[in-house]
Amino acid sequence: MSTMEVIPGKTRIGWIGTGVMGASMCGHLIKKGFGATVYNRSRSKAETLIQAGATWADTPRQVAEQSDLVFSIVGFPSDVREVILGSDGALAGCRPGNVIIDMTTSQPSLAEEIAVAARSGGVHSIDAPVSGGDIGAREARLSIMIGGDQAVVDALRPCWEAMGKTIVYQGGPGCGQHAKVVNQILIASNMIGVCEALLYAYQAGLNLETVMASVTPGAAGSWSLSNLGPRMIQNNFDPGFFVEHFIKDLGIALDEAGRLGLCLPGLALSRQLYQAVKAQGYGRNGTHALLLALASLAGIDWPNRRPH
Amino acid sequence: MSTMEVIPGKTRIGWIGTGVMGASMCGHLIKKGFGATVYNRSRSKAETLIQAGATWADTPRQVAEQSDLVFSIVGFPSDVREVILGSDGALAGCRPGNVIIDMTTSQPSLAEEIAVAARSGGVHSIDAPVSGGDIGAREARLSIMIGGDQAVVDALRPCWEAMGKTIVYQGGPGCGQHAKVVNQILIASNMIGVCEALLYAYQAGLNLETVMASVTPGAAGSWSLSNLGPRMIQNNFDPGFFVEHFIKDLGIALDEAGRLGLCLPGLALSRQLYQAVKAQGYGRNGTHALLLALASLAGIDWPNRRPH
Repeated sequence: MSTMEVIPGKTRIGWIGTGVMGASMCGHLIKKGFGATVYNRSRSKAETLIQAGATWADTPRQVAEQSDLVFSIVGFPSDVREVILGSDGALAGCRPGNVIIDMTTSQPSLAEEIAVAARSGGVHSIDAPVSGGDIGAREARLSIMIGGDQAVVDALRPCWEAMGKTIVYQGGPGCGQHAKVVNQILIASNMIGVCEALLYAYQAGLNLETVMASVTPGAAGSWSLSNLGPRMIQNNFDPGFFVEHFIKDLGIALDEAGRLGLCLPGLALSRQLYQAVKAQGYGRNGTHALLLALASLAGIDWPNRRPH
Repeated sequence: MSTMEVIPGKTRIGWIGTGVMGASMCGHLIKKGFGATVYNRSRSKAETLIQAGATWADTPRQVAEQSDLVFSIVGFPSDVREVILGSDGALAGCRPGNVIIDMTTSQPSLAEEIAVAARSGGVHSIDAPVSGGDIGAREARLSIMIGGDQAVVDALRPCWEAMGKTIVYQGGPGCGQHAKVVNQILIASNMIGVCEALLYAYQAGLNLETVMASVTPGAAGSWSLSNLGPRMIQNNFDPGFFVEHFIKDLGIALDEAGRLGLCLPGLALSRQLYQAVKAQGYGRNGTHALLLALASLAGIDWPNRRPH
């Protein structure tokens, strides 16, 4: 890999999955000067990129046939499997020396499986899930957690830097996905605490803004408390990050934890509670809609709460 | 209360409970010029304050008889009840216009009960628990959460400012304690997430410092992750904040949540897990020793872990 060079204007990129995240991320690479071939399940979501100069391809395989580096960011692990390992998938269109970079939040074990399959064809495979959401993607401020061959990861630096701000190599194949699991485990239990704390404060008759002033600067403080707490207080449960995507991530985390022989009761509780959030119709709300499900447990009608 | 003035060198303070927190906090008031009368269950822990000019009293009642303002910071709610409401307690020694300020983390309902008892004797009562631990107490950087009569709280400002940095009036009697419950609910669930995340990272074979670099700056970030995560990685489980004190706080939180008709599954899980932490012999370790109890569930011998 010492001979691999990634050069805007020369290295051809492919992009599979042009949803909210993918469209922003691919757009940054195009702006940086990379020529791009794109594919998405529904073509309409790729139009902006096509207008910016990208070429459309009808399948992930055709994307790979036109590209040196193939990025993907799709929905579920089953989608990852299809667009990379399927008969019309990217790997089938790759030549030796090409690189497949999956940025979907997906299973570490699937990342390892893809790496093995890729290696047998002389293709490099990198797992590089991100955190930071649609805003982080738009502002190129993502945290990118990267697994795979370190020399390849280093060679891809111009791409990482076009999309992210916190760029950390985590180890071999699957390690990027493992790091993302760590990230989601942290968010899962903390979100329970943030929601329960605000419900307690509400039910105790405290002024929610005033109690935030006491608890955010100290040992109880967190990103979720500071950033999502105020939205909950304002009854704003827009995503942010969709509940149904988080449920996918928690399922991956629990599966992998089981594979690793771990007992993680907080993670398990969180997954159960998010099932309730979805069952109550909040699947397309932000993850902080957990508050509404926990409120319903106590018969609290949060959206109609009176100011204290 | 508009005539109440709190003036160093003139207003006499009393201090009940000169443990690690209380000794630092009372010391700040003495340095500010307040004359102090002190009591502690074991006199030896008051010696430093006595050498700094404080007068010893044999009972909380005698403390109150010599003081205009009586502060207390003791162990359990039962201790608060004894040193304030007992026959040799502070209230028995108070005169009309005196102020009792309990800074113990205690029950909101007990704070309300004390306020009623005090009021019947023309005495003011304030609940003002703190967060920030022994370091926050020593450096006068505590967060002080205050409940009671606002005019009295305002008059006490010279005292608050001598001890704390984040000083927030939360409402009537008990509201300071309620705010502290909110603080502990936040810490409880987040600590589960931090410990489970590090265990997952370890078991997945990630480098723990490297994964911290990916997850601390973003949506998964928290005070506990940034401040206690590195200690866990270094196998340092010194307190910080004692497990057995946290168990007390979680018990108070669950009792009050029950009283308020709340269902808080994350808090309940946390309380159960901390029972395990104590049962495994970590009661006098820091709250982040939860990691060790969770590790034992998965048969992971964390103290003897090999570096990855």
